[in-house]
Amino acid sequence: MKVVAPIFLALTVPMLAAEPFRQTLISSEKNIRVESAEFSGKKITPKVPGWTIRKVTLHGGKQEGVELIVVNNGKMEFTVVPTRGMGLLEAKVGDVRLGWYSPVKEVVHPQHVNLLGRGGLGWLDGFNEWMVRCGLESNGGPGPDEFINNVGDKATMDLTLHGKIANIPASEVEIIVSKEAPYSLTVRGVVHERMFYGPKLELVTEISTEPGSSTLRIADTITNRGHVPQEFELLYHANYGRPLLEEGARFLAPVSRVTPMNAHAAESVNDWASYAGPTPAFVEQVYCLRPIAGPDGQTLIALQNKAGDRAVSMAYSVKELPYLTQWKNTAAEAEGYVTGLEPGVNFPNPRRIERKLGRVPKIAAGASYTAAIDYAIHTDAASVKAVADKIAKLQGDTKPEIALEPEKKE
Amino acid sequence: MKVVAPIFLALTVPMLAAEPFRQTLISSEKNIRVESAEFSGKKITPKVPGWTIRKVTLHGGKQEGVELIVVNNGKMEFTVVPTRGMGLLEAKVGDVRLGWYSPVKEVVHPQHVNLLGRGGLGWLDGFNEWMVRCGLESNGGPGPDEFINNVGDKATMDLTLHGKIANIPASEVEIIVSKEAPYSLTVRGVVHERMFYGPKLELVTEISTEPGSSTLRIADTITNRGHVPQEFELLYHANYGRPLLEEGARFLAPVSRVTPMNAHAAESVNDWASYAGPTPAFVEQVYCLRPIAGPDGQTLIALQNKAGDRAVSMAYSVKELPYLTQWKNTAAEAEGYVTGLEPGVNFPNPRRIERKLGRVPKIAAGASYTAAIDYAIHTDAASVKAVADKIAKLQGDTKPEIALEPEKKE
Amino acid sequence: MKVVAPIFLALTVPMLAAEPFRQTLISSEKNIRVESAEFSGKKITPKVPGWTIRKVTLHGGKQEGVELIVVNNGKMEFTVVPTRGMGLLEAKVGDVRLGWYSPVKEVVHPQHVNLLGRGGLGWLDGFNEWMVRCGLESNGGPGPDEFINNVGDKATMDLTLHGKIANIPASEVEIIVSKEAPYSLTVRGVVHERMFYGPKLELVTEISTEPGSSTLRIADTITNRGHVPQEFELLYHANYGRPLLEEGARFLAPVSRVTPMNAHAAESVNDWASYAGPTPAFVEQVYCLRPIAGPDGQTLIALQNKAGDRAVSMAYSVKELPYLTQWKNTAAEAEGYVTGLEPGVNFPNPRRIERKLGRVPKIAAGASYTAAIDYAIHTDAASVKAVADKIAKLQGDTKPEIALEPEKKE
Repeated sequence: MKVVAPIFLALTVPMLAAEPFRQTLISSEKNIRVESAEFSGKKITPKVPGWTIRKVTLHGGKQEGVELIVVNNGKMEFTVVPTRGMGLLEAKVGDVRLGWYSPVKEVVHPQHVNLLGRGGLGWLDGFNEWMVRCGLESNGGPGPDEFINNVGDKATMDLTLHGKIANIPASEVEIIVSKEAPYSLTVRGVVHERMFYGPKLELVTEISTEPGSSTLRIADTITNRGHVPQEFELLYHANYGRPLLEEGARFLAPVSRVTPMNAHAAESVNDWASYAGPTPAFVEQVYCLRPIAGPDGQTLIALQNKAGDRAVSMAYSVKELPYLTQWKNTAAEAEGYVTGLEPGVNFPNPRRIERKLGRVPKIAAGASYTAAIDYAIHTDAASVKAVADKIAKLQGDTKPEIALEPEKKE
Repeated sequence: MKVVAPIFLALTVPMLAAEPFRQTLISSEKNIRVESAEFSGKKITPKVPGWTIRKVTLHGGKQEGVELIVVNNGKMEFTVVPTRGMGLLEAKVGDVRLGWYSPVKEVVHPQHVNLLGRGGLGWLDGFNEWMVRCGLESNGGPGPDEFINNVGDKATMDLTLHGKIANIPASEVEIIVSKEAPYSLTVRGVVHERMFYGPKLELVTEISTEPGSSTLRIADTITNRGHVPQEFELLYHANYGRPLLEEGARFLAPVSRVTPMNAHAAESVNDWASYAGPTPAFVEQVYCLRPIAGPDGQTLIALQNKAGDRAVSMAYSVKELPYLTQWKNTAAEAEGYVTGLEPGVNFPNPRRIERKLGRVPKIAAGASYTAAIDYAIHTDAASVKAVADKIAKLQGDTKPEIALEPEKKE
Repeated sequence: MKVVAPIFLALTVPMLAAEPFRQTLISSEKNIRVESAEFSGKKITPKVPGWTIRKVTLHGGKQEGVELIVVNNGKMEFTVVPTRGMGLLEAKVGDVRLGWYSPVKEVVHPQHVNLLGRGGLGWLDGFNEWMVRCGLESNGGPGPDEFINNVGDKATMDLTLHGKIANIPASEVEIIVSKEAPYSLTVRGVVHERMFYGPKLELVTEISTEPGSSTLRIADTITNRGHVPQEFELLYHANYGRPLLEEGARFLAPVSRVTPMNAHAAESVNDWASYAGPTPAFVEQVYCLRPIAGPDGQTLIALQNKAGDRAVSMAYSVKELPYLTQWKNTAAEAEGYVTGLEPGVNFPNPRRIERKLGRVPKIAAGASYTAAIDYAIHTDAASVKAVADKIAKLQGDTKPEIALEPEKKE
């Protein structure tokens, strides 16, 4: 035995899963904040040297002290913003950038955002991400809603546009690099939306990619750390401007139903899938979609440019994210020429309406809700066609029901 | 005489008061902010080496940039939070911790607290201190109240829960160590609650202990730096969870009257002095007490555990703090299992109610109001019994008047 | 010709304008923030050595992280506050200080100002500058006003006192020093008041002086970076306490009309140009003035002390700033003994009133509005008299129309 054991160990060591490389960059538990750092494949995974992860701190104006994590997998580069609830500022492959050109140019620190401002629209002071989560206690339009206050009474509060999570800094951030194939690169963050006499929702997000890949995955787990069931709302508000959005760009989505958000959107409901160029005085049009999934529950949607040789696709489970919101805002460039493709657990009506319509889920005490989206960038016609074909197959013979009127809400 | 004088001097020199050691850690007047530091008895009072005072800056999440001062007197350790109005996060002796386990885990920087949020309950976003002052211009429940605006008119503003002082960073902080017996260790802070066309209230607090002691004192002076008399409200909101709070824990207080805050609290008024274990769906119960003092004006209250071998006691003058509020919130652990024992110059009703009932004092221009509380930790049955006996003696034969209905308020 | 040309060039080379010295101190574009720095004539313009420009970062209390730029031209020293929208804290020549002694003593970081607080008067939490801009989307008294919300509907928001610009940190700050006569010293800043579905106003300010001068100029360009015409309001709120303001101090202004802001101000309208000493329980009096300009459009106003041997003068174009507001607040010293002299594009009524009365201008998409004010400090009777004479000449024989009633507003 004495002799065997070492041999056994020696044989198995290389077969054991190699411990991934982990580095904490921010931690309120461990009292850590790394001002700047760079990690690279050259040092950490010499066999797969072509990636870097950088930690940057921004300075000047409203972005003083904002922290970014820039992941470059050798082909795709994307930027995570821990200071703004682990949203993603942009992602790029070649000449395709996921993101948009908001009038808000800086990455705004939450200290400069008053959610209550502008009649509850203060969230718009910092809105410029490619992908920003809306939630967690609530999202959607601002307005009054009931809540239970400290003395156990029903009271009224003014909910603010799209909730708090995008303006809460992450409490824990670490990078995790797998030391064996596929050498996945992960930014893991924890954001707490919690208060006394209020929600105790914990978001754990893992944003990951692989060296040389054109895709990234956002995989979130939301846990109710309170002792009572907790309502929540969640929308993955992914926003696209140029180069994908342009006159003639198309939204590809397998849908069973398209419902305009309001009377204004109803006027153009039949054109929901096509986009105009920048249009001065354009007023936003929002469509509420019911995506079709395959037998595995997965759906696939895409935004392709006019030529059909550039696209972004988003694959996810409709069991996790049953409602899909399309936000068309093809305004003048200076006002923000953009469309949002937004899978969610709800539509972005004010919460009191969503609740009435049965679309505000609850998480039991101690339980979790998970959701994941795979984003892929397509940079040639063949790849775009392959995605379009898959979407067409999901659509199959189903004729989408196009509602000419908005839902009845109040 | 000529000969005597030098000898006299020689003899008295060591009897002269030695200048205390003073070190400024934060000063807006002197433009100072010390990131971290440590002071110790070994260096400063070699005869009494067993104490340390540390300055720490926190990182990560909502606590990025929050400053703490940790005083360890060799027996007791407590933590002061300059960034949050010189509140105290916790105090510990042996296995007894003063404090509670709030769902809010980080020490939240005021930049992440919007007092106006959640219908005026935004204060709860940062609430996790052992001892937090509520005030100074107002405290208590949120709601509208009159004020005089810039054009001299009566206007209405929405007061927010428990006022501003806990979310104002201290402008001046220094530590002061006496170089002679009893070698007192003091953290001195100045917090300004001041604005143009508003209150100009200055809080100077001295938080002190002595090496080897199980007690600490909070001694505050509030000065009206304005030219006109200024209303103020002040409550020392000390909060206790485990290990002192548990099923069977007892609140010991010599009282002449117990009045429930609302109808819900009225239902359980006869059980005011006893505590339940964690109770899911528990709704807070608040009792307004009139403590009995001795001939010197001092009263004494305590919270003891079930076994009666651990307790905290609080001694103070009812001339300074005539009203005592007891907050019972024996909710589930995850929601915050806690009781607050809160001496104050007022009860925590909305200010318009307190004013109507004559409990909103004023400070004349240039004048000051002082208040002090001695907190002691008791870690054995004999010490707890001694405190209980003192309290029983203050109670004497007085039968507390138990009100079955809340005060008439509006 | 062939021969002449080189000689011509050789002669002219030293006549070409020398490139000025430029140094970026803050830049969100370049991700720069300089903690502290000092620049001096000794090093940069050795022929004119007697000036310095210092960059300072403040610490402690509510001023933690606030940035200042202190320009000393050898005679005049003034302080710019990038963190507070490029306002000016004070300016000094000899024994004359432009500024006032606000109850707010710290230079308050915007993170500690909640504009929505105190019924929309939260701006007063940070108000202590000598010269603070009020605007840009709106200024004046708080109150509800219409705006167009995200869905294109008219909605109501609560405008807050004096708007946002004073609580927005500058995104770009650089100093520019001319290397030839008159060796002008300039602090250039860019502040963005922009949001999605809201204004996209860019303020570029150049605050400049010359070595040995008693004057400084504020020259602003406001550009509408949006695609649609944008309303704006702008007021240069310059505030004076001692030594210029005192009992018997005089406001000198060539005016065609004086209108009290409200009934209270109307009671004392005939005394508009004279000042009382500190007066307990004084309630602010505001007068709306129409200044008279010379043929070049320039007007000149001044505040002189009682003796007439110290004064500040302000020269500017009434084409740029047609409305002049005088704010008298001769309250007790501890409350803020101060007068504001405030040229603007509007009067500081709530915006809905100014709009109704035709005083809310618009800037076309991509267009700019410019305004400049020259501030001069006068430290002897002759200089004061020269200013007074110029003002008298502008007044000429025009009898000011003194309105005994406020404007009809609603």
